[in-house]
Amino acid sequence: MHYLEKYSKLIEEEIRKNISDIEPTELYKSSAHLIEAGGKRIRPSLVLLSTESVGGKIEDALNAATAIELIHTFSLIHDDIMDKDEVRRGRATVHVIWGEPLAILAGDVLFSKAFEVMLKSNIDEKRLVKVLDVMTKACVNLCKGQAYDMLFEKNFEVKEKEYLEMIYYKTASLIAASTKIGAIIGNGSKEEINALYNYGKFLGLAFQIHDDYLDIAGDEKQLGKPVGSDIVEGKMTLIAIKALNEANKEDREKLISILQSGDEKKVKDAIEIFKKYNSIEYTHEKALKYAKKAKASIEVLEDSKAKDTLLSIADFVVKREY
Amino acid sequence: MHYLEKYSKLIEEEIRKNISDIEPTELYKSSAHLIEAGGKRIRPSLVLLSTESVGGKIEDALNAATAIELIHTFSLIHDDIMDKDEVRRGRATVHVIWGEPLAILAGDVLFSKAFEVMLKSNIDEKRLVKVLDVMTKACVNLCKGQAYDMLFEKNFEVKEKEYLEMIYYKTASLIAASTKIGAIIGNGSKEEINALYNYGKFLGLAFQIHDDYLDIAGDEKQLGKPVGSDIVEGKMTLIAIKALNEANKEDREKLISILQSGDEKKVKDAIEIFKKYNSIEYTHEKALKYAKKAKASIEVLEDSKAKDTLLSIADFVVKREY
Repeated sequence: MHYLEKYSKLIEEEIRKNISDIEPTELYKSSAHLIEAGGKRIRPSLVLLSTESVGGKIEDALNAATAIELIHTFSLIHDDIMDKDEVRRGRATVHVIWGEPLAILAGDVLFSKAFEVMLKSNIDEKRLVKVLDVMTKACVNLCKGQAYDMLFEKNFEVKEKEYLEMIYYKTASLIAASTKIGAIIGNGSKEEINALYNYGKFLGLAFQIHDDYLDIAGDEKQLGKPVGSDIVEGKMTLIAIKALNEANKEDREKLISILQSGDEKKVKDAIEIFKKYNSIEYTHEKALKYAKKAKASIEVLEDSKAKDTLLSIADFVVKREY
Repeated sequence: MHYLEKYSKLIEEEIRKNISDIEPTELYKSSAHLIEAGGKRIRPSLVLLSTESVGGKIEDALNAATAIELIHTFSLIHDDIMDKDEVRRGRATVHVIWGEPLAILAGDVLFSKAFEVMLKSNIDEKRLVKVLDVMTKACVNLCKGQAYDMLFEKNFEVKEKEYLEMIYYKTASLIAASTKIGAIIGNGSKEEINALYNYGKFLGLAFQIHDDYLDIAGDEKQLGKPVGSDIVEGKMTLIAIKALNEANKEDREKLISILQSGDEKKVKDAIEIFKKYNSIEYTHEKALKYAKKAKASIEVLEDSKAKDTLLSIADFVVKREY
């Protein structure tokens, strides 16, 4: 997203500055590894855009934006250990290079640093405490979401409602925290803060559901992983949940046995079942619906370039092919 | 320490209340496990005593005390994973029962909860931000200390100064944060805050060094582990560092080979070398010296029951046999 470049450059610099004093060297390197691998910096950009969209100054929100990206990075490092993922952003994951003990610690130190950076924000204590409160609740939610996500694996009874709650905790909550925090720092009105919180929440849901959709409909090269990886891993995506819920007994049993098998060759059989019950299209439409809801949430904001960008991001999130 | 009972009872209740809403159940159970196993609750008691010792009200400091204990618990859970320790407080460790993924998450959620609890403190925003700042810096130090501790294992070149820095980060920093936070919440003067910070720092150093001493001089039954466990694990304790530094070439090489061997039968040979170079007594005296420094640090405080208890704690820390 070219229109985010300006923001992500600002953030890169802030992140670098704020983690540069981590020691010993091994801890610094391991905690900087994933940050240096790049990433879209969507969350911190959303913080800055939200501040701007309510008439605030970007400078006031830079620390918060940095803090949010550090929280996100901490959670990725720990999730990769838990999920035994070996590649992220085209690089070997932290625990693969430095081992689990140092990877755990790298996550912990970034978590701590996130609060340190936030506390250095140049805003009054009243707003700072509010912002910390939002950030902290999102951290609790992240843990909750990851726990549910792990429990849901190969649990074929998961309902759509439970799935939506899980992705709210795991993904949407931190994105909603980003936009809400931006609005608070920008001195937005109650209505504006609420609008931006809802925007972030729906955007996060759209983002995660579109991710599920891309696993089947995405471009293998751009995704950097084969189509149907979620099927092979037996993950409970919205596509799978919908199909399991709609399918007749025979198809349901067949799909369960595919999801349990871990067999790449059976991906096409699963997709056939998905198609039969229209669950791919259903998931795509769900993502579009949430993106639309995200856009509708910020209708109340005054027109601005920042608002336009937020609207474009909602479109982008469900159009991206990777 | 019977005089801490009153405080630890208050804290138990607060902790229980504040973690009761963790979900899913598996995450709640795994994060409550170590807390329910007991523990001396020294850090939270120090928060409350420090508040009292400067004339503040215990009620104002209960959230902070709880937060500090949650931080401590989080770090124990993660340290046990990293160090592959299987027993703590007489119970199987969290990762042994629930596996590493959930144990990582249990630590993470307690870390998040610590900030949540702190933010619910019933104190004005100015003090709250100060308190959060102290807590956050201690968290960064905890990570740093654990990283150095891991790097020091079987590193026979570690100097006493490096060792003291490591235990400051790993142990003393959170204890110093406890007493400093208590003083801030109690509206202590700058001088009082500083005095209590120093008390905590020296107490923490005395505590850790006495731990090293107990590994050789302690009571096997009360410790719950065999004398010389640190030797078998090849840990760089002050006793070992002092001996390695003082020993002649032959004894140094012998000691290194013992520390590398992991052989329980060689513990007595190591102790002989320690005795030859007086490193056990040296370590004991060092702990006593820091305990004395801790007591001297709070001379400036007005006399009170809380102050007396703080002085007793400093004595206890280097007299305990477990």
